[in-house]
Amino acid sequence: MNLPSISLKQGIHVMHLFYRVDRWRWLQLPSGESTGRRERLTALCQANQAACQPRLTCYANVGGKADLVFMLQHATLDGIARLHRDLEACFPAGVLQPVFSYLSVTELTEYMPTLEDAKLRLQRQENLAPGTPEYEKRLAEEAKRVEDYMHYRLYPELPDWEVMGFYPMNKRRQAGDNWYLLNFEQRKLLMGGHARTGRKYAGRVVQMITGSTGLDDWEWGVTLVARQADTIKEIVYEMRFDEVSARYADFGPFYINLRLSPEALWDHLRLPQV
Amino acid sequence: MNLPSISLKQGIHVMHLFYRVDRWRWLQLPSGESTGRRERLTALCQANQAACQPRLTCYANVGGKADLVFMLQHATLDGIARLHRDLEACFPAGVLQPVFSYLSVTELTEYMPTLEDAKLRLQRQENLAPGTPEYEKRLAEEAKRVEDYMHYRLYPELPDWEVMGFYPMNKRRQAGDNWYLLNFEQRKLLMGGHARTGRKYAGRVVQMITGSTGLDDWEWGVTLVARQADTIKEIVYEMRFDEVSARYADFGPFYINLRLSPEALWDHLRLPQV
Amino acid sequence: MNLPSISLKQGIHVMHLFYRVDRWRWLQLPSGESTGRRERLTALCQANQAACQPRLTCYANVGGKADLVFMLQHATLDGIARLHRDLEACFPAGVLQPVFSYLSVTELTEYMPTLEDAKLRLQRQENLAPGTPEYEKRLAEEAKRVEDYMHYRLYPELPDWEVMGFYPMNKRRQAGDNWYLLNFEQRKLLMGGHARTGRKYAGRVVQMITGSTGLDDWEWGVTLVARQADTIKEIVYEMRFDEVSARYADFGPFYINLRLSPEALWDHLRLPQV
Amino acid sequence: MNLPSISLKQGIHVMHLFYRVDRWRWLQLPSGESTGRRERLTALCQANQAACQPRLTCYANVGGKADLVFMLQHATLDGIARLHRDLEACFPAGVLQPVFSYLSVTELTEYMPTLEDAKLRLQRQENLAPGTPEYEKRLAEEAKRVEDYMHYRLYPELPDWEVMGFYPMNKRRQAGDNWYLLNFEQRKLLMGGHARTGRKYAGRVVQMITGSTGLDDWEWGVTLVARQADTIKEIVYEMRFDEVSARYADFGPFYINLRLSPEALWDHLRLPQV
Amino acid sequence: MNLPSISLKQGIHVMHLFYRVDRWRWLQLPSGESTGRRERLTALCQANQAACQPRLTCYANVGGKADLVFMLQHATLDGIARLHRDLEACFPAGVLQPVFSYLSVTELTEYMPTLEDAKLRLQRQENLAPGTPEYEKRLAEEAKRVEDYMHYRLYPELPDWEVMGFYPMNKRRQAGDNWYLLNFEQRKLLMGGHARTGRKYAGRVVQMITGSTGLDDWEWGVTLVARQADTIKEIVYEMRFDEVSARYADFGPFYINLRLSPEALWDHLRLPQV
Repeated sequence: MNLPSISLKQGIHVMHLFYRVDRWRWLQLPSGESTGRRERLTALCQANQAACQPRLTCYANVGGKADLVFMLQHATLDGIARLHRDLEACFPAGVLQPVFSYLSVTELTEYMPTLEDAKLRLQRQENLAPGTPEYEKRLAEEAKRVEDYMHYRLYPELPDWEVMGFYPMNKRRQAGDNWYLLNFEQRKLLMGGHARTGRKYAGRVVQMITGSTGLDDWEWGVTLVARQADTIKEIVYEMRFDEVSARYADFGPFYINLRLSPEALWDHLRLPQV
Repeated sequence: MNLPSISLKQGIHVMHLFYRVDRWRWLQLPSGESTGRRERLTALCQANQAACQPRLTCYANVGGKADLVFMLQHATLDGIARLHRDLEACFPAGVLQPVFSYLSVTELTEYMPTLEDAKLRLQRQENLAPGTPEYEKRLAEEAKRVEDYMHYRLYPELPDWEVMGFYPMNKRRQAGDNWYLLNFEQRKLLMGGHARTGRKYAGRVVQMITGSTGLDDWEWGVTLVARQADTIKEIVYEMRFDEVSARYADFGPFYINLRLSPEALWDHLRLPQV
Repeated sequence: MNLPSISLKQGIHVMHLFYRVDRWRWLQLPSGESTGRRERLTALCQANQAACQPRLTCYANVGGKADLVFMLQHATLDGIARLHRDLEACFPAGVLQPVFSYLSVTELTEYMPTLEDAKLRLQRQENLAPGTPEYEKRLAEEAKRVEDYMHYRLYPELPDWEVMGFYPMNKRRQAGDNWYLLNFEQRKLLMGGHARTGRKYAGRVVQMITGSTGLDDWEWGVTLVARQADTIKEIVYEMRFDEVSARYADFGPFYINLRLSPEALWDHLRLPQV
Repeated sequence: MNLPSISLKQGIHVMHLFYRVDRWRWLQLPSGESTGRRERLTALCQANQAACQPRLTCYANVGGKADLVFMLQHATLDGIARLHRDLEACFPAGVLQPVFSYLSVTELTEYMPTLEDAKLRLQRQENLAPGTPEYEKRLAEEAKRVEDYMHYRLYPELPDWEVMGFYPMNKRRQAGDNWYLLNFEQRKLLMGGHARTGRKYAGRVVQMITGSTGLDDWEWGVTLVARQADTIKEIVYEMRFDEVSARYADFGPFYINLRLSPEALWDHLRLPQV
Repeated sequence: MNLPSISLKQGIHVMHLFYRVDRWRWLQLPSGESTGRRERLTALCQANQAACQPRLTCYANVGGKADLVFMLQHATLDGIARLHRDLEACFPAGVLQPVFSYLSVTELTEYMPTLEDAKLRLQRQENLAPGTPEYEKRLAEEAKRVEDYMHYRLYPELPDWEVMGFYPMNKRRQAGDNWYLLNFEQRKLLMGGHARTGRKYAGRVVQMITGSTGLDDWEWGVTLVARQADTIKEIVYEMRFDEVSARYADFGPFYINLRLSPEALWDHLRLPQV
């Protein structure tokens, strides 16, 4: 493995992997081998449990589209590729049947409120004059907020909540509704409405938006974690009425997954010790 | 299984599972094992036969798209995930080949007639004055009706009729016909026409509408139970002329299924005792 | 099999089944078993050869999409489901690989000429006065014609011609061309043009139109029988210019099939006696 | 095989068959059996090498979509069905994995220049008067040309060039661009532009256009033979700018194939003698 | 292999091949055989490592869609077909499972700046008079630049950077946005904007655009090499706002791949020595 380390300018790589399990092949395992398999997966997860990266998180899909789901996070492309192959090597040959996968990277969004937006707001909405102590104090707070948000976008740390939803999406390019022909101000305005809807769900849904234009078949991946399935349904449903979704969003497949420890996965999927 | 219990704010989870059977693998079963398999499925159904939830209902698909069909209902996400895995574990490894699946939850609809609608109707259509005994009596009736309907939407108890149809659907978001750009009044009006068509089939078709925006690939799942296949065809065909379907509905695959006891499934599918 | 008998209000159920044959599995059959298999299929066909129903007809697909094709007709839903499973049980496990299938029912069409249409025509085009013997005689003829046509639509008896074509179709619901937003008169007028084209092929093509809205993934199934492949091509091509097809029809896959006796199928598909 | 002979009114049936080879199953062949297989395919090709029909031509697909490709031509539907099954029987069970297939028939085109067109041209463009010897001579030439073209369309004899391209196509039926709503003159005019582009490639590309409306999933199949891959790219690219393609054509998958003798196929695909 | 040599008029053939590996079959290899397999692939790469052609480059896909990826370049169609089959023969039967493939050829673009464009620019933007020594010197420089570019388009030599991205694309032909109905000047203008965006990435992204109209299912293949994944994301994202992409481009699947030596592939994919 003489691969050079392939970083991004900023941010991390994210991979979502969905598999079915071929139970028949599992049962062909030589007696006693399953214990080693289980321990290998546990060890790989323990070696990759940083808050942001390197990180390997395990889920069981709910609903029948897949069995096992993994979310991988790594600073380098070679690192995430290796983690992916290490993960597959935890399973006996032929047991993991790929169902869906997604590669994306964290990114800043050009539509997020800037410090310039904050200055205008302080002056216009809070009636503070530049140079006054209050203005400077508030501006420092706003600068911190912008910086924290940018750091979160690039190096996200998702809470370990029970439910994880994932779906990829595009902005639409159709004759009547073409996102990429709108100018920046129109796009920023539309995205702002979307962000307002999102803030209503603070504390109930945490989202990670990753970019994948040129990397995978859709332009963005959306990962939502929550404590209940209906919270995810609610936020996605409410956002669908925002003009930015109603007119400009095309969605790929949706997956709902249960956060499980690697040890719990085997029992949940009824993969017996053989 | 250390999963915490993951409820919804209200309502239940529903899963529709469609499988083909790999007969060749069934016939590889060690002699005598099929009896245990049959008993296991029967026991699982008996343990999950509440009117609303937990519930596991068995069907045979008619038409060739699938063999076995199961509808699962459970209050919790972890519970329905477990029931799904218990069900799959009733079958020998590799015998069930997934064909289609759907995850949704029961929900209230924002378009249903409210008590406020009822008050206006009592005053305008029935010429009753607020405060009069007749008005109060009628209002109490209406309140009961709204409450019963809401309870049914969230905790449905479908009759055990012979034919079950299932299909998922979206509201359309196209340049000319974009449901999500209509205002609430327009949408409520359109849905009202749809409801009127549905009421013509009272006693012949019972429907369960479940929401799946953000949970699965379509926005709603529609489950229809009836005593004949042509009743299902009639209602779906008639509704297609309602503007809300004609202009705003996109449909996924349709499945027609026969209600069968778990014991009858094996014979119907010609899975011999081995 | 304690299924109650599940009839339609009128008409019959129709199933089209398309399979590939796994030749490798056929050759694994224990020596001598293929003879029994062949006899079983022949017997099932003999037991289901009513002119309308119950009926099981065998075809070989031409063109490479499938190998074996079966058309099943039965009065009841449970009966057609049983016939389907009896048919599959004629083949060794794993030999039949499903390719495509379709479930539909025969139906009357709301656009067919009525007795009222006939009365107007007698008065206006044939200049006959109501009440005159000639009028009454002609009216009785017309009534008989309408009745015969209705009976044929519901209980079709297709000639045993060599070539059978099948395809499913929808009426289009698009922004500019939405069939379901036209009023009844517009739709009847458009369908009338279609019927005129069809009548040109009398004696060369017999068609069976079956409805499947809510039952399968398209709204109608079209079964055409003819004596040559190009007759089917001609009629479908000519109809494509009728406005009702040009603007309002969406078509699914097309299958061309050769009528074969069950005995001839095995030789045609080179399934040797083993 | 008691199938009656099923001819067309005129022309022949054409089948394009694309397969992958399961090498693993090939290697399971009992020792010595592969020689017989090779000879069987060679013999079948020799028995079907008429210039027009019956004809079986072998190709290797280039690009990875398929391995083996066959083009079959036969006067009768039962004949082409038999040839298809004879071909498959040349290969051990399970070795041929179907990838794509297409059934079509040769046909006259209603847009080809007629003798009436020729008469007008002689009078208007060549200034010849009807009845004059020069006019009659030229008219006889034109009649011969029309007749030769018609014969070629129905009974094509393709040169044995090295490269064969195949793709199916439809004429579009969309709100703005609906071919089937144009009148005959408009369509003839548009097709005329297309023909002019085609004539530029005389001697470098020979095409066979076959009709499949009602027979397979697209309306036409296009078979192009050439001596280089880029000639096929050039003609298809240039035609895409003709309005008839730009606005009215929808294309299916494209396949590029190398003409190989049956003997050369085995070596090219590295199917060793076993 | 008596295939004649099938060249292009100019340029080379390019094939992109994406495979999954069937690990289970790999492990069935007779003991000791894997060494020979590894050496065979290394030797084939060494025999095909010209800067332009013949060339075979190895990659591992990142993200889960495929395992092994190969890019083949060859002057002749028969040569690239042979190289493809030689490559597959390096692997045991059944180990390579095809996922996606693409066939295209290098080509000149009709939209590239010509010497005539350069002359106008020299006169108008650089104020040089034809015939002056400075004009002639600059013109010679421009002529060299055009020639170099044309040579690169036809006989590309990509740098051996770590990351390779591939996707196929079409120019759109829709009612409102039909590329093929624009005139040449409009198309050249739009492509010019695209080229300007591309030049910003000089030194960070090298692209190879290959044509495939009539050869494969899309009209062009785009191969991008870079040193980081986010550079590929950046350029594709930025170009999406160019009108030529925003209105006129349809994209196929995207694949991100890691450049690996043939020796490193086996370890990366955890294909053990058996």
